[in-house]
Amino acid sequence: SDSYSLLILPGDGIGPEVMAEVRKVIDWFQSNRGMRFDVSEDLVGGAAYDVHGTPITDETMAKAQSVDAVLLGAVGGPAYDNLDFSVKPERALLRLRKEMDLFANLRPAQCFDALADFSSLKREVVSGLDILIVRELTSGVYFGEPRGIHSDGNNPENEGGRVGINTQRYTSGEIRRVARAAFELAKKRKNRLCSMEKANVMESGVLWREEVQWVHDNEYPEVELTHMYADNGAMQLVRRPSQFDVIVTDNLFGDILSDAAAMLTGSLGMLPSASLGVPAANGRPKAMYEPVHGSAPDIAGQGKANPIACILSFAMALRYSYNEGAAADELEAAVERVLAQGARTADLMGPEGGTPIGTAEMGDRIVAAL
Amino acid sequence: SDSYSLLILPGDGIGPEVMAEVRKVIDWFQSNRGMRFDVSEDLVGGAAYDVHGTPITDETMAKAQSVDAVLLGAVGGPAYDNLDFSVKPERALLRLRKEMDLFANLRPAQCFDALADFSSLKREVVSGLDILIVRELTSGVYFGEPRGIHSDGNNPENEGGRVGINTQRYTSGEIRRVARAAFELAKKRKNRLCSMEKANVMESGVLWREEVQWVHDNEYPEVELTHMYADNGAMQLVRRPSQFDVIVTDNLFGDILSDAAAMLTGSLGMLPSASLGVPAANGRPKAMYEPVHGSAPDIAGQGKANPIACILSFAMALRYSYNEGAAADELEAAVERVLAQGARTADLMGPEGGTPIGTAEMGDRIVAAL
Ligand SMILES: CC(C)[C@H](C(=O)O)[C@@H](O)C(=O)O
Ligand SMILES: CC(C)[C@H](C(=O)O)[C@@H](O)C(=O)O
Repeated sequence: SDSYSLLILPGDGIGPEVMAEVRKVIDWFQSNRGMRFDVSEDLVGGAAYDVHGTPITDETMAKAQSVDAVLLGAVGGPAYDNLDFSVKPERALLRLRKEMDLFANLRPAQCFDALADFSSLKREVVSGLDILIVRELTSGVYFGEPRGIHSDGNNPENEGGRVGINTQRYTSGEIRRVARAAFELAKKRKNRLCSMEKANVMESGVLWREEVQWVHDNEYPEVELTHMYADNGAMQLVRRPSQFDVIVTDNLFGDILSDAAAMLTGSLGMLPSASLGVPAANGRPKAMYEPVHGSAPDIAGQGKANPIACILSFAMALRYSYNEGAAADELEAAVERVLAQGARTADLMGPEGGTPIGTAEMGDRIVAAL
Repeated sequence: SDSYSLLILPGDGIGPEVMAEVRKVIDWFQSNRGMRFDVSEDLVGGAAYDVHGTPITDETMAKAQSVDAVLLGAVGGPAYDNLDFSVKPERALLRLRKEMDLFANLRPAQCFDALADFSSLKREVVSGLDILIVRELTSGVYFGEPRGIHSDGNNPENEGGRVGINTQRYTSGEIRRVARAAFELAKKRKNRLCSMEKANVMESGVLWREEVQWVHDNEYPEVELTHMYADNGAMQLVRRPSQFDVIVTDNLFGDILSDAAAMLTGSLGMLPSASLGVPAANGRPKAMYEPVHGSAPDIAGQGKANPIACILSFAMALRYSYNEGAAADELEAAVERVLAQGARTADLMGPEGGTPIGTAEMGDRIVAAL
């Protein structure tokens, strides 16, 4: 078989530490499952800014465009908080998303049974929870023009004299393509899709609702589609998250709702994500994978970060970029097994205490469980 | 003392039922506390549309502008779901907010101890919870221009051929005034304010953060101010809501976050809100009060809706519009007492069951407890 190309961007904070554990997993699949990975590595975020004065170089962008998959650790940290908007570590993420056209962000919110008690929600509300949020990632208010801060002339009614503007802009085509991705995923799951917007107050939400409905009626009539206002969606996620299977929503709502959903599960340090674009000539979509957790500067460099979210992000790469679904299942099962055996990094320790294991030991155990 | 003017807009669904109970409370304060209320009533939402073809008439608007306080029940329902955007029941709310310039929406998220087990969150996470979200209510993406849905010409890259646009636009003056309202409230509480935006991706969020900081540094240096990205805010609300005292955020984030926070408490049917504007010549701010719950069409007309949120909204009117803080305290204490005695409407019944009381009986009991 030909080799699988992978660009690793460890980034900042705990990114490099958790990525080291993914390397072990990659080695295992190379040694034991006859896969060949062509792995390269580069700087991103604050780490890139420190060296190059930019959070991502053109060379790294070109590399990201050419590989089958990018695996990113995390970006940002207090050292970079006061950087100018245009060179903040986050710009690297936004540039990767936009230039690679990664329009479908898949954010599973899954409660690992061994961790159900770790949620702030009651066990019976989150136990077995398994929902998938599909967030539009390359348009909406994150990218619309005009944008910026400008002077309001001498408007006497505007104390302070400035105006801040962003534009929420969606085309029907942008909505349809992410809707299709969500319908496809729903078909492989429980066949239910809930679309969220604020069609009661925003015309872009009206368009969103109409276009998702159009894709349903014309292409996926067999999938059960419902629509919900995003504020009610936030409520329902808290009240009874298990009512959902797949949720599709826009860039900004998706940011908020997927983070809330991740926290509901109690498994935040466990959650992966995939950002997928259009399939290339070889059939593989442009793709970037990253753990949902951030760079966690408070524990960086201490060897106690949880590598599972990053390892599960690699499992998503196996599934969506390399078409190695069986290997992805194998890796996910190994993680479940290690958790069931009671292995816990510090972030997964409940109030009952116990002895946490470190980043490297968690990685080793997962490899051993494979 | 001069009389207190009040415009009651019962609206749709359970609105009229819960409002009838507020009438009893008003009568009690008139008979027992020597207050004089000048109460008028009008149609709003679907009920107004049915009669007048518009969700709020100019006459009702004029009336709302002239009174000390408006008390609104709820608007909307399935009968109106397919109405054109411009005459939807929700437009009445938006028109009231905008024309009365009700820029500060106060949304307390409070967990009533008697109901703590009713939350989907663990008792220890929500017990005693008492936070206040201050949402900017008259600007941002709800109102910014340009907005609308238009044709994208013959853009071959836009399958579907339409574009939906909304504009997030904030002036520094708009941010400063809602920040001041939030700082004032924080001073009367635990002296802590957390401001939420997405300054990492939106310039309007950068302006928001800078202006809130400016108000702090120049006018409220003694209040503890923190800033948080709104997605992290959603996470933290789920994880440990008690870390917050007062939160200030924009119109759209406020919509989502305050609904999530309301649901966290388990006390959704209990939560009031106040929307305040600029003080008039008599010192009273333009003001509208409404329960957080909606029109609940599924139970409308059955006499089982919970009137407490609407009654507590009237308590907020006593406090903020009529400067009757002691009476507000008295009314809130009566509600707590009735709950502690075990009185429950159907929405407050836990899985352990019991016999719910109806809307009217709940109202009667609260009056009896005064
Ligand atoms: C870091 C930030 C730019 C980013 C976003 O808002 O999209 C993050 O919150 C995410 O969800 O990936
Ligand atoms: C009904 C709707 C227009 C409204 C809003 O989005 O503001 C509601 O959700 C609210 O929070 O009062």
